[in-house]
Amino acid sequence: MSGLFITFEGVEGAGKTTALSYIHNQLTEAGYQVIQTREPGGIEIAEKIRDVILNPEHTAMEARTEALLYAAARRQHLVERVLPALEAGKIVLCDRFIDSSLAYQGYARGLGIDEVYEMNRFAIEDAMPDLTVLFRIDPVKGLERIAANKDREQNRLDLEKIDFHQKVFDAYELLIERFPDRIQSIDASQSAEVVQNECLKLIKNQLNVR
Amino acid sequence: MSGLFITFEGVEGAGKTTALSYIHNQLTEAGYQVIQTREPGGIEIAEKIRDVILNPEHTAMEARTEALLYAAARRQHLVERVLPALEAGKIVLCDRFIDSSLAYQGYARGLGIDEVYEMNRFAIEDAMPDLTVLFRIDPVKGLERIAANKDREQNRLDLEKIDFHQKVFDAYELLIERFPDRIQSIDASQSAEVVQNECLKLIKNQLNVR
Repeated sequence: MSGLFITFEGVEGAGKTTALSYIHNQLTEAGYQVIQTREPGGIEIAEKIRDVILNPEHTAMEARTEALLYAAARRQHLVERVLPALEAGKIVLCDRFIDSSLAYQGYARGLGIDEVYEMNRFAIEDAMPDLTVLFRIDPVKGLERIAANKDREQNRLDLEKIDFHQKVFDAYELLIERFPDRIQSIDASQSAEVVQNECLKLIKNQLNVR
Repeated sequence: MSGLFITFEGVEGAGKTTALSYIHNQLTEAGYQVIQTREPGGIEIAEKIRDVILNPEHTAMEARTEALLYAAARRQHLVERVLPALEAGKIVLCDRFIDSSLAYQGYARGLGIDEVYEMNRFAIEDAMPDLTVLFRIDPVKGLERIAANKDREQNRLDLEKIDFHQKVFDAYELLIERFPDRIQSIDASQSAEVVQNECLKLIKNQLNVR
C-alpha cells in the first residue's frame, strides 16, 4: 500500500473530530489526496451495525457482543473505504480505530486488551495504522465539553459513568507504552488552535519519514 | 453447568428444524426441562444483528464482516438465553451454533476453519456444545426440499450457488473428523420419521452418559 493510514484516538470530547477536519483541509490545500472518515463512514452495512450498537434501548448488550459488533463495522468500513483509498495512494484520516476497542472493550469493560486485540486482528488483518494521534485530556473535562455542545447528540456511551471514562483514559496510557512507535500523543486540554497545530506537525513528520 | 447443550447442524434443507421440534416434544413428554432455540432466538439485539446479515440488499457484505456478525449474535443469544437455561439444569436444543460459522465462513467462504474458530472462542468462551447432531444430506437434495416448501421464506444464503452449499457439506465432513467426540452424524436423506428417531436415540445416549 502506498498511502498513509492515520487514526485519531482519545476519550469523548477530546476534540479529535474538530482537529481532524482542520488537518484534512490543511493537507488538501498542501496538495495531498486525503480522505476523512470515521468507522461507519457512510458504508451502509457499517451504519446499520452502528445503529444496533448505539441504540440507547439496547441496555442488555453484553460487552463481548459490543466488541464483536465494533469489529464487524470496522471490517466493512476498512474494506469498502479505507483500503481502496490507501491503495490509491491517499492519506486516510480515521476518527477512532482498533485502539478504541482496546481501550473501551478491552480495558474499560474488562475483557482484556490482549483478547480484544486478537479478535480485532481477525477483522483488520494487517491493516494497522501507520500513525495514531492520541488526544490526551482529563475525561471530566472532555465530558464537560460535550455537555456544553448542544449540537452534538448524546449516545449510549456518553451516558456511561465517569469511572468508565477514567478507565478509557487509563487504557490509552497503557497503549502508548505498548505501541510507542505507532502512537504519538498531544495535550488536548490546550486551545483548539494549539492542539490542531501540534497534530499537523506530527502528521507532517510522518509524511517526511515515509 | 448442570444442563445439557445440544446443537443441530447441516446444509440448508436437511430437516434439522422439523426434527428439533419433534425432539423437543418427546423430551418434554419424558419429563425433561427443555428449551428449543436458534441463534437470534427472539433476543432483540441478536434479531437486529440477524436482520443486517440476512438482508438480501447487503450484497456488499464481506466474508469477515459476516463472520463477526454471526459471532456477535451468537454471543448475545448465548448470554441471554442459553447459559441461563443450562445453569437452571435444562436441556438446550439449538438450531445451528459455532459449527455453522466454521462450515459457512471458515471453509465455504475460505476464511479458514482455524481463524474462524479462534474468533468464535472470543464469542462463546468455554460454552462448547456437549453434543452436536449433524444432519447429512446431499446439498442438492436439501435445496430441492426448500424449493418444494412454499411456507419457508428464502433468504440470502439460500440464493448462493450450489458450489457453495457443496463446500458447506464438505466442511461438515472435515468437522466430524476434527471433533469426533462431540459431533455425531445421521443420514438425513431418510424419511423424516427415521431421521427423528435416530436423532432422539443419539440424544438419549448422551443423557445416559451424563
